[in-house]
Amino acid sequence: MRSFFKVRRAKDVFESLGDIERLGTEVVPITDALSRVLARDSISGEDLPGFKRSTVDGYALSAKDTFGASENLPTPFSIVGEVRMGEMPNFGLNRGECALISTGGMLPEGADAVGMIEYSQMVEDRVVEINRPVSILENVILPDDDVKRGQTVLHKGSLLRPQDLGVLAALGIGQVDVFTKPRAAIISTGEEIVDISQKPEAGQMRDVNSYTLGGLCNTSGVEPLYLGITGDRFEDLRLLIEKGMSQADVVLLSGGSSVGTKDFTLDAFRSLQGVEIVAHGVSISPGKPTIIARKENKTLWGLPGHPVSAMIIFDVFLRWLFGRLCGRSKPAEYINHAIEAELDRNIESASGREDYIRVRLTHSEGRWLATPVLGKSGLISTMVEADGIVTIDMNTEGLYGGERVKVRLF
Amino acid sequence: MRSFFKVRRAKDVFESLGDIERLGTEVVPITDALSRVLARDSISGEDLPGFKRSTVDGYALSAKDTFGASENLPTPFSIVGEVRMGEMPNFGLNRGECALISTGGMLPEGADAVGMIEYSQMVEDRVVEINRPVSILENVILPDDDVKRGQTVLHKGSLLRPQDLGVLAALGIGQVDVFTKPRAAIISTGEEIVDISQKPEAGQMRDVNSYTLGGLCNTSGVEPLYLGITGDRFEDLRLLIEKGMSQADVVLLSGGSSVGTKDFTLDAFRSLQGVEIVAHGVSISPGKPTIIARKENKTLWGLPGHPVSAMIIFDVFLRWLFGRLCGRSKPAEYINHAIEAELDRNIESASGREDYIRVRLTHSEGRWLATPVLGKSGLISTMVEADGIVTIDMNTEGLYGGERVKVRLF
Repeated sequence: MRSFFKVRRAKDVFESLGDIERLGTEVVPITDALSRVLARDSISGEDLPGFKRSTVDGYALSAKDTFGASENLPTPFSIVGEVRMGEMPNFGLNRGECALISTGGMLPEGADAVGMIEYSQMVEDRVVEINRPVSILENVILPDDDVKRGQTVLHKGSLLRPQDLGVLAALGIGQVDVFTKPRAAIISTGEEIVDISQKPEAGQMRDVNSYTLGGLCNTSGVEPLYLGITGDRFEDLRLLIEKGMSQADVVLLSGGSSVGTKDFTLDAFRSLQGVEIVAHGVSISPGKPTIIARKENKTLWGLPGHPVSAMIIFDVFLRWLFGRLCGRSKPAEYINHAIEAELDRNIESASGREDYIRVRLTHSEGRWLATPVLGKSGLISTMVEADGIVTIDMNTEGLYGGERVKVRLF
Repeated sequence: MRSFFKVRRAKDVFESLGDIERLGTEVVPITDALSRVLARDSISGEDLPGFKRSTVDGYALSAKDTFGASENLPTPFSIVGEVRMGEMPNFGLNRGECALISTGGMLPEGADAVGMIEYSQMVEDRVVEINRPVSILENVILPDDDVKRGQTVLHKGSLLRPQDLGVLAALGIGQVDVFTKPRAAIISTGEEIVDISQKPEAGQMRDVNSYTLGGLCNTSGVEPLYLGITGDRFEDLRLLIEKGMSQADVVLLSGGSSVGTKDFTLDAFRSLQGVEIVAHGVSISPGKPTIIARKENKTLWGLPGHPVSAMIIFDVFLRWLFGRLCGRSKPAEYINHAIEAELDRNIESASGREDYIRVRLTHSEGRWLATPVLGKSGLISTMVEADGIVTIDMNTEGLYGGERVKVRLF
């Protein structure tokens, strides 16, 4: 009557999905390219800045003319012109001559350095004294100092940050080739689940998972499609899953995946043409009753109904999967989501599974302390209280208070 | 002819802007509320889950009936019914009776625990043997275990995460009161700056700062308004600033703020009715030539033209300011953007200013190493190469290789 779980380890799941291919590409304006993934190497067609540029306000001059200058014995220079911003100077400098220049200005012929205003003194209308020696190339950027022609400035697969947009702008790339955003269809299942606009009767609860999963999709660069709630009628569930598969790259169901009396998720997945079951159960706690299925490049996820469990499974598998679909070159690295902390008490763990422990962070005497948040995985309030997650791997039976742990921020 | 900087320390700037008030509020659908800031405490009007709920699939029963049960001497129970999901059971349990129940089901009268399917065995059609004692409340969530009626589940000023959306959903809050998103007008100034669609002539460069600053706004929950580029014509600049002030909460200019020959930013700020200058220069490197002005709750920022300097000033001051405008209760905490690393070489620093050092991160033997990225602040490529920033405070003359430092990810 009931099938027990065929539990698989996380690494086996990653292996089974390891040939999932990234999506296609599209072109977006640079102002929409933040946090998108670059679809081709950006190779510079030119040197940047492209001309010899001053980095300060001061006097463009020849460095060797300043050698020996000091406060007691400043060197006088004739000011023969002023560099106009955005223009090539139409004059050159001879020995003992200098030109007024602003930050970003182009050095005239004959100049190889800029003396700062702070170390100068006007003595006559067109004469300035420089009271410190200036070295060759001091306060100057050479034509290819920033970027060299032919240089790869950004690699395919990079997640675009503000500074990356800056370098694209500098190269004149206003339309950016990026990988397509994955789409995830979100379905909540269960006769007990009601829409958030409804007041639940005894035995019912409002749909939580659509919103936590939708939020997680948004934080992962994925577009959520909210397909709503379905009860335990097999045909309804099946139709909704098919709708999800036609509109999205990934279908996220929650609820109905444990080995209960009305376990239709597994049956629904099995009933679909060409769908193979990858896992029925994963050795992760909380989150064990997860069903993973696949049809070619599309995957179906029967997540646990407990909101905390569903979030953990998303964090373990779906961030990774979306990284692949998005074309990220380093999908496994989340340095911006992990900090080191000291555990403030012992945690026990069963070996043979990965345990994900919710923790609250507090800062004390220059370090972070991680305090486990206790409570069943059915309690959404425990996730609200938590700042992050600590993983205890399969072969560890627990962690000691005082141990340094890596906290994935949640 | 030229005014030298009236340099102010960061803490003095924070003090001068400390009375900036947060913006008003608006209502958004829960599916748009991610990363917005909650504008009122969320107080629960009900207990959650609101009924005695099973956390597993199994048999609802009275715990005391299982005392003494073991594999050798299992206790038989009559199955008198099955709990239907989403409904209040229309039957109760007597001594020695149990009911089939699924995860999320409501316990019938007379039940105070749930025995897991894994520790049971069907012996007849309506009789199951339980082979382990079950404690009172085992596998059960009480009606107010998750949230208590009257409890504040989320505080005003919280930045909403996926799990926070989950708890709002659980409470039936589909329309969320949040603080208004700040708007920032972005203007690039300088005769040498051309639009990114143009090929720069000698002495010109494409507009970089509009895109780095726009990206930083987006990562800070701020809507950027791109007002374009203006040359050094005073009246054009003044009109564009006025346009920015009428449409946005913050005006971000870049370029033209150093003490150059065409230093119109300061003059333009001064020429505006009711605008007071807060700082002309800040003791931060890179980023010193920054002008900060204010008119009531609106602020004007003359950022350095160097892209790196402008980004550092944004990071130091504008993230903080936007946190205030957004109504964040903890604007100064960015735990999700800092990691600890070990510096891999000495860095010198002038005392009397805060130094911001770009670093690249590499992971080695379980720890992060931070390597300084050298290069002038005019070089946007150095920011692309960097993963984050290390701060050297005003009273420190440098950091030693091997020291642990906090890296703000960029």
